[in-house]
Amino acid sequence: MLTAETSLAMRDFISVVGESNVNTNAADLRAAERGTFPTGHRIPAIVRPANRDEVQECLRTANRHRCSVYPISSGRNWGYGSRVPAADGCVLLDLGRMNRIVDFNEELGYVTVEPGVTQAQLQAFLAEHKSRLWMDSTGASPDCSVIGNTVERGFGHTPYGDHFAHSCAYEVVLPSGDILDTGFGRFAAASAAPLYRWGVGPVLDGLFSQSNFGIVTRMTIWLMPAPEYFQAYYFQCPEPDQLPAIIDALRPLRMNGTIRSSSHIGNDYKVLSALEQYPWKATGGRTPLEGDLLLNMRRELRIGAWNGSGALYGTRAQVKEARRLITQALKGKAARLQFLDDKRLEMAERFAGIYQMLTGWNLKRTLAVLRPVYGLMKGIPTDRPLASTYWRKRMPPPESMDPDRDGCGLLWCSPVAPNDGRHAKLITTIASEIILRHGFEPMISLTVLTDRTLSCIVSLGYDRDVAGEDDRAMACYRELLDRLALQGYYSYRLSVGAMKSMGEPGTYHKLLEALKRTLDPNDVLAPGRYVAPTAPARR
Amino acid sequence: MLTAETSLAMRDFISVVGESNVNTNAADLRAAERGTFPTGHRIPAIVRPANRDEVQECLRTANRHRCSVYPISSGRNWGYGSRVPAADGCVLLDLGRMNRIVDFNEELGYVTVEPGVTQAQLQAFLAEHKSRLWMDSTGASPDCSVIGNTVERGFGHTPYGDHFAHSCAYEVVLPSGDILDTGFGRFAAASAAPLYRWGVGPVLDGLFSQSNFGIVTRMTIWLMPAPEYFQAYYFQCPEPDQLPAIIDALRPLRMNGTIRSSSHIGNDYKVLSALEQYPWKATGGRTPLEGDLLLNMRRELRIGAWNGSGALYGTRAQVKEARRLITQALKGKAARLQFLDDKRLEMAERFAGIYQMLTGWNLKRTLAVLRPVYGLMKGIPTDRPLASTYWRKRMPPPESMDPDRDGCGLLWCSPVAPNDGRHAKLITTIASEIILRHGFEPMISLTVLTDRTLSCIVSLGYDRDVAGEDDRAMACYRELLDRLALQGYYSYRLSVGAMKSMGEPGTYHKLLEALKRTLDPNDVLAPGRYVAPTAPARR
Repeated sequence: MLTAETSLAMRDFISVVGESNVNTNAADLRAAERGTFPTGHRIPAIVRPANRDEVQECLRTANRHRCSVYPISSGRNWGYGSRVPAADGCVLLDLGRMNRIVDFNEELGYVTVEPGVTQAQLQAFLAEHKSRLWMDSTGASPDCSVIGNTVERGFGHTPYGDHFAHSCAYEVVLPSGDILDTGFGRFAAASAAPLYRWGVGPVLDGLFSQSNFGIVTRMTIWLMPAPEYFQAYYFQCPEPDQLPAIIDALRPLRMNGTIRSSSHIGNDYKVLSALEQYPWKATGGRTPLEGDLLLNMRRELRIGAWNGSGALYGTRAQVKEARRLITQALKGKAARLQFLDDKRLEMAERFAGIYQMLTGWNLKRTLAVLRPVYGLMKGIPTDRPLASTYWRKRMPPPESMDPDRDGCGLLWCSPVAPNDGRHAKLITTIASEIILRHGFEPMISLTVLTDRTLSCIVSLGYDRDVAGEDDRAMACYRELLDRLALQGYYSYRLSVGAMKSMGEPGTYHKLLEALKRTLDPNDVLAPGRYVAPTAPARR
Repeated sequence: MLTAETSLAMRDFISVVGESNVNTNAADLRAAERGTFPTGHRIPAIVRPANRDEVQECLRTANRHRCSVYPISSGRNWGYGSRVPAADGCVLLDLGRMNRIVDFNEELGYVTVEPGVTQAQLQAFLAEHKSRLWMDSTGASPDCSVIGNTVERGFGHTPYGDHFAHSCAYEVVLPSGDILDTGFGRFAAASAAPLYRWGVGPVLDGLFSQSNFGIVTRMTIWLMPAPEYFQAYYFQCPEPDQLPAIIDALRPLRMNGTIRSSSHIGNDYKVLSALEQYPWKATGGRTPLEGDLLLNMRRELRIGAWNGSGALYGTRAQVKEARRLITQALKGKAARLQFLDDKRLEMAERFAGIYQMLTGWNLKRTLAVLRPVYGLMKGIPTDRPLASTYWRKRMPPPESMDPDRDGCGLLWCSPVAPNDGRHAKLITTIASEIILRHGFEPMISLTVLTDRTLSCIVSLGYDRDVAGEDDRAMACYRELLDRLALQGYYSYRLSVGAMKSMGEPGTYHKLLEALKRTLDPNDVLAPGRYVAPTAPARR
């Protein structure tokens, strides 16, 4: 399976990182080639550099042998391709060993990390230093790389939810092996380097986000000071058509700074998949889940057609005023608006049993879902949402979850829409119709990531071990991307299988290609990842 | 003065924009070659395209004839070079005729503008549409271009003060004449194009800011919703050494979102130059202004060693709480903390005469300065700060001010420092010492532009009509840049005479050069502006 060139390259990779850090074990390679949807790209080896110098040498080796490499940080790009390269035959450059936290400043609120630093590690680091700073976490997993998620422009749930917008001072190894520092980082001892994004002259950070122009080996991440007081809010819409009014009611509060973090609104399927697995028994094995059965489950589990959450950060008086404004805005538009703080959450957990006796409602189960979401709004990573990737599996989520290994089918489609009720309705209606028609459940969330936009995440969950399911899911996914694009909704991020959705050939692609030729003339770094060497064909 | 190539090019420029839009009048060219400090670059002609197509044709013409062009929007880049190109012999491409506001959305808060749209024009447009949106203005002048300031990463005083951070969807004419749309703009009818900055794939906006990689012919600018209630605050430090404590006291409030806009802290000279011209009589013609005379003026005009201002935006309760927190934070650290809203300002203006009778203090004069600053915090453009460029002149500012024409010497040095008292003290101490030693007055402001940084603006004002003064000022300016850089403080923006301060040769420059060669092989677009075709020599 190794080409002659790759075999020669392997010898050099070994001399760079040592024999124990070049893995050609067939089982390990097959595992790395397996994501949560079908991909055909093979990986001839996994190389694990220990530091920046080794990354530089690896890229020089790759150029010498015209051997492509594909960097991963933690490789948990689930739903978008996991560890699987965007092209066939790439050596996986696993940056997991580079996991140092190299700088930390409590007063100015930042850390500087390497690509192997995970959300859990950063969380533990902050706890260990008794820091009053909060990180922002994605819901994906505690083991996700902080840098990996940031360069992919992933997001979380605190006021620092837009990760890319809260990072700076990238140290980048270019395909040539040269080191580039973005922002003021190129100047010796520039005191504002970790603090000011733009530097002087052209701003280059964006070139290294969603691209294959360089490997980010270090990055500064800003952290928010813990607020004096924190309060989460939750609400529901019993009816699907209440969504537009909710979006329009919350927009002014987001735009005027009353709501500083990303409100998150999930549909019934989304919440259901967090609480339960597919009701195989009740449906008699039929899919998709629909109609009365869905309604009954919604009622039983007290789930709305739409379910919102968000949080308030500030002094007690600031939170109180925000709460008043939210209550006023949602009046008559949402049901079950509730505010929760640490004290109330603790109370609820303590008295859940009694509550169930009195009301019959299994509050414990709700709290089990609610607690991690509550934590995410404080930036605490959780692996709870990962369980929902087992939605369609016939086995329960195992202790140690691994959707790639366990054949969990997962495809994420992530179109961005204006923060406007009309668009919220249209985008979710289109997505739901397509997914149900293909026999799956549309799990949809809308995150008010920025003042003006909704990040819509449509997740397509299925069981890869069911024959034919991979194909059906891919057909559904492609229709989703195409139909949404036709309506003007484009994804903020693409899976390794959907890089053709970068658009029609044009000046943008010509420019990217020219940049790629300039920076990586041998096309050795992550070929096909967002930037293809030739203009993509019409989909 | 025209080279043969330029003469030939001129014929083609005329065929593109029409004879009346190619200006080779000697007096006009000499005026355009004149900034607020000495520059030697000559301009053979001024070409004024009417629209994007003409800009494309102008660039194609430039390439055909290897004739450099230098775009200006309004040409009011005072203190950084006015209209003067960064290289000799460039045809000035004056985009002033492209002044359409091509899109506007009240609900989602944005406008899309062309480069000729000025601050005053946008302000008038919003008033005309009875918009509840506020723009953000720089203090430079109502006639400044919105795009021009944004691509230079200029700033203002509202929560949208960081202009570059509040813009997206650039339409760029590349040096080849091709059109590039950044963000989602490249997709047909992408509904989030004017709303979501990053798009999908590499983020390219930054390439067209502080560079010579393309001409931005259209840009979306986000606008903030007018708050329910607005209150400005002002404070003073009688003693210079109170500055660090103030910076450190305000930082937590900025970082936790209580203060959402850019607080501005100016030294005595800065405020003085806004109120008066140089006291030639009292000093008997001696410079710089120092010692008892300065202290007397400070006392008489009620100016502090440091003078702070900022504003609060929100509901009444939000502003009230912010006010409480600011009062608490500044207690014992600042004097004369005052809060001012529309009603109180109106009262003060009405009763200024009586107030002066009672107290002897000329409140009217203070209000004349205060009113424009108050307006800026609401995004209202003003030409009041422009008067201070006449500080050292022996004539009063004329009705129609033009610092280029009137020989007002002005050099702006704009280092960025951490938002930290120790750095604030160091940077201002170094700058003051250098400027006074060179015989000028250090007019310094610190703007808390982002949560973590201070944008320090050191303005060096002098009279170009005094023999030798240009040379003395330039020597002072160079020492400023060098000494501050040695201490780790680098400018966020450079004057056309200081492009060598882009740093030592290295990977960053190699990359910029490679990009420049790729995008502009004939180096026709703004040669030498931030990106030089060869690595800059060691300063």
